[in-house]
Amino acid sequence: MSNTYSTLKNLDLQSVRSAIRSAEYTAHTAGLGFGYLQANLVILPEEYALDFMRFCQRNPKPCPLVGVSDTGNALLHTLGQDIDIRTDVPAYNIYKNGKLIGSVTDIKDHWRNDLVVFALGCSFTFERALKAAGIDLWHITNNTTVPMFRSTIQSVAAGSFQGPIVVSMRMIAEDRLKDVQEISYRYPLAHGAPIYWGDPKAIGIEDISRPDWGDPAPMETGKIPVFWACGVTPQAAVEQANLPFCITHKPGHMLITEIPEDAEVPVFTKST
Amino acid sequence: MSNTYSTLKNLDLQSVRSAIRSAEYTAHTAGLGFGYLQANLVILPEEYALDFMRFCQRNPKPCPLVGVSDTGNALLHTLGQDIDIRTDVPAYNIYKNGKLIGSVTDIKDHWRNDLVVFALGCSFTFERALKAAGIDLWHITNNTTVPMFRSTIQSVAAGSFQGPIVVSMRMIAEDRLKDVQEISYRYPLAHGAPIYWGDPKAIGIEDISRPDWGDPAPMETGKIPVFWACGVTPQAAVEQANLPFCITHKPGHMLITEIPEDAEVPVFTKST
Repeated sequence: MSNTYSTLKNLDLQSVRSAIRSAEYTAHTAGLGFGYLQANLVILPEEYALDFMRFCQRNPKPCPLVGVSDTGNALLHTLGQDIDIRTDVPAYNIYKNGKLIGSVTDIKDHWRNDLVVFALGCSFTFERALKAAGIDLWHITNNTTVPMFRSTIQSVAAGSFQGPIVVSMRMIAEDRLKDVQEISYRYPLAHGAPIYWGDPKAIGIEDISRPDWGDPAPMETGKIPVFWACGVTPQAAVEQANLPFCITHKPGHMLITEIPEDAEVPVFTKST
Repeated sequence: MSNTYSTLKNLDLQSVRSAIRSAEYTAHTAGLGFGYLQANLVILPEEYALDFMRFCQRNPKPCPLVGVSDTGNALLHTLGQDIDIRTDVPAYNIYKNGKLIGSVTDIKDHWRNDLVVFALGCSFTFERALKAAGIDLWHITNNTTVPMFRSTIQSVAAGSFQGPIVVSMRMIAEDRLKDVQEISYRYPLAHGAPIYWGDPKAIGIEDISRPDWGDPAPMETGKIPVFWACGVTPQAAVEQANLPFCITHKPGHMLITEIPEDAEVPVFTKST
């Protein structure tokens, strides 16, 4: 049986992780591991970790911290019983001196004893609640990655980390906008309420059909573009910081944690 | 006009801060600066900062991080326009080698260029919402500090930081318990929902009339003791870590920030 997206969509968390760990599945995770918190990843040397953690604390909408590893420890024990960050994400981006040098499906050969892993909440987790409320999300229906854009809204700097807030865009029917705001507000670990809706140009997006990451989604009649702070923001901050070495997830290709997405706090205990 | 508690209770935020900054007022802050997020404080050398920040991230109920300074910078620019942490808290505790060596009303003579300031949300901020819902809080009515206890519930360790979760106790009428849970859940930056209610002995509190910090509050007929994770938890963790140097607020004597307590995120902007 091939591990295609449509197969994995119906599998439980352990089976999904197993397919990702073995690199049988290397594509995006939207809609997978239904009901569990998904996370963006930033992995960097310890000397940058304190400033990066400050950056996350100061920008909690794009960078909601859900887990931080011990230095040099690839096991994220606060996010699950058995998560090895070297293998449990479908695809990773490797950066050297601020430049993307390649994408890989595991980072066993890139792991170092001075690395610190940061897991940040992801919008995928509130999409379930939106769908449950009858709100259609084009990119899930069409099996694509949500479109993401560099906006002109600036983050709050910390050390060498700074830059624009990256936003993800979903078309929402005008009469559901208030519902969407209220529902997503309840997920502070998944970017919370949208930060902007309406004319994309007002936040510096000149061409909505050409996202900086992810796939384009069409402007739909009767709907307006709604923008959430996005977990790719720290990737943009890391790129401009020109760190000698850094690893992130490949956008759209997330870590699926063992934390239920309606948990009050993102701390794994054996009873959850 | 003397700056007594009853005077300050009716003053605006700027006037309250001014009285604290000049050390005219050096007592507890419960009920002051109505409507603004209050914060517990931990100030420690940068070499311990990353582990301490991990400790907060892993224990978000007792340690909800609302602000972190740049190293050596006493101004908390993400929590207000003009907060100087050396003067803007009514009373501080100074620790050397894990021992409390004294309490002071400013830390100008103790400030160092390697210090990092951590501000953590405080239960005072949800008490307003409880009172607005008609829930009586004995310690506010009687102008005392809430009773706090070392429990036997353990925190999640990070580096040398570990130890028991400290809890604050409020007597709540049984028929209001559900309201109290739902209301305080809405304040994740102020410890969120209670972590325990009922027999204090079950969480290791042998004598409810003898709190480890704060003032005793009587067992009231028809009410049950309800316990929230408390911002003194990191003080207990810091004490057992035997850090060479550390400063905290004196329990009950908080930093009053310029962040509205119903803000979605604790990040000051000029428009808030």
